[in-house]
Amino acid sequence: MSGEPRILVTNDDGVHSTGLRLLYEAVKPLGRVYVLAPEASRSACGLGLTLNQPLRITRIGFWDNTPVYVTNGVPGDVVYLALEALSPHFDLVVSGINIGDNTSLQAVLASGTIGAAVQAALANIPAASFSIDITDATELEEDRETWNNVLRVARTVALWILQHGLPQGVDILNINFPRHVNSSTRVKVATMARTKFTQKVTSSMDPWGRKIYWLYGSMTSLEPGTDVYTVHVEKAIALTPLTLDFNMHKSSWETVETVLDSLAKLLEKSLK
Amino acid sequence: MSGEPRILVTNDDGVHSTGLRLLYEAVKPLGRVYVLAPEASRSACGLGLTLNQPLRITRIGFWDNTPVYVTNGVPGDVVYLALEALSPHFDLVVSGINIGDNTSLQAVLASGTIGAAVQAALANIPAASFSIDITDATELEEDRETWNNVLRVARTVALWILQHGLPQGVDILNINFPRHVNSSTRVKVATMARTKFTQKVTSSMDPWGRKIYWLYGSMTSLEPGTDVYTVHVEKAIALTPLTLDFNMHKSSWETVETVLDSLAKLLEKSLK
Repeated sequence: MSGEPRILVTNDDGVHSTGLRLLYEAVKPLGRVYVLAPEASRSACGLGLTLNQPLRITRIGFWDNTPVYVTNGVPGDVVYLALEALSPHFDLVVSGINIGDNTSLQAVLASGTIGAAVQAALANIPAASFSIDITDATELEEDRETWNNVLRVARTVALWILQHGLPQGVDILNINFPRHVNSSTRVKVATMARTKFTQKVTSSMDPWGRKIYWLYGSMTSLEPGTDVYTVHVEKAIALTPLTLDFNMHKSSWETVETVLDSLAKLLEKSLK
Repeated sequence: MSGEPRILVTNDDGVHSTGLRLLYEAVKPLGRVYVLAPEASRSACGLGLTLNQPLRITRIGFWDNTPVYVTNGVPGDVVYLALEALSPHFDLVVSGINIGDNTSLQAVLASGTIGAAVQAALANIPAASFSIDITDATELEEDRETWNNVLRVARTVALWILQHGLPQGVDILNINFPRHVNSSTRVKVATMARTKFTQKVTSSMDPWGRKIYWLYGSMTSLEPGTDVYTVHVEKAIALTPLTLDFNMHKSSWETVETVLDSLAKLLEKSLK
């Protein structure tokens, strides 16, 4: 790392989210900070990228002396746009602080907050994602104790990654805060649960009498040691290292390969 | 499995895609088939879910005697909507055939085709996703040899999964076809590459003279044995088993846990 570390701050709730400003305040003393975020909430778009339409970048103002940029793209786009338009390299990408926790693979795969971190990791930039288990940003704005502690944790995590790098084999450090954080809140290293919600759908009528459906979830059974348990049951802060790989581990691969080889032979015979 | 197997057919290119119809034709003789797809292309939305707005389901017609439904949601929503509105269980979810291959983690994480399969897997339904390395659906429509062979392969894969289930530990079988498929095309079991493209951004002006950016990618260096190499270099069909887990393997976990435990202690000390 030559000179001041360069840190990109982004999120998926959009530039007007309190969480983005909190994360900016947290990392501001650590280096040269760049802010580029979606112009509005993009939390539905998960890990997507915008490949089929043009993207724009607009400077909408300044925080201290730092220009604040927005884009019409999704969080996954932000890293590539920032590398093109703001700086040719970054030492760290931080994403968040998301209003709503991102625990479990189920949530993480649909999360724009993680979407930005994933693209950073694929571009070989260390990344950390931050989320808090609240449903409304005003909860965080009105709870100064939690606000200040979240800021301290985010700052310490960012500094630690700048100094040590992520541990070997870790692509993203995913941090989830419980609703309230005070001096006795514990911090735990947790694995990622597979699911958090039993996904459900409710059906009802819109004001015009037409049928509508709405996705929601009810909390699934919780396993100790997981991020979901740590945040929701223990009310502790969860640090979860993520490795971006959907391949089976080498130890299981050979068995599966043998089974699928038989399918491959069957498929070759079916071709005409 | 009691009675006829129930098969859900969906995609991310939308109900009007040739690829959806091909996949429907492929699985039609295998059981009771349900079609529910996005009303238009949702390929930008990756693995997202629609949690903050109502969803609708509309029957737009019939294929043979099978009703064809569309939704305003993204592919990830489809499985949950189908379980609520069409059938309380499915024996198999097939997604595709996507116009454009879905090789490498980079593509897969941003892919709606895989998004539907991911949600199926999280709901404990076996899932297969199909994609072909073409840029325009007309290529497939005009190449009947490839069309027929893709159909045979999709049918054989679906039947095989219905009969055998997915191998232990496999959540999704991801199948990618090369541009042309004929009687001498090979079928290979392949691992998933990490990246496929070096992601790039081009900047230019729109007709009004305003600056725009556009994401694209140039093919990265290709490693034999991966899905990207199999499809793009060997022009073979790639069968790639996916396991949905971003946790590190147990063998690496302890080392990383020790390192992160020291960070956790540091963070606890920072709280006030």
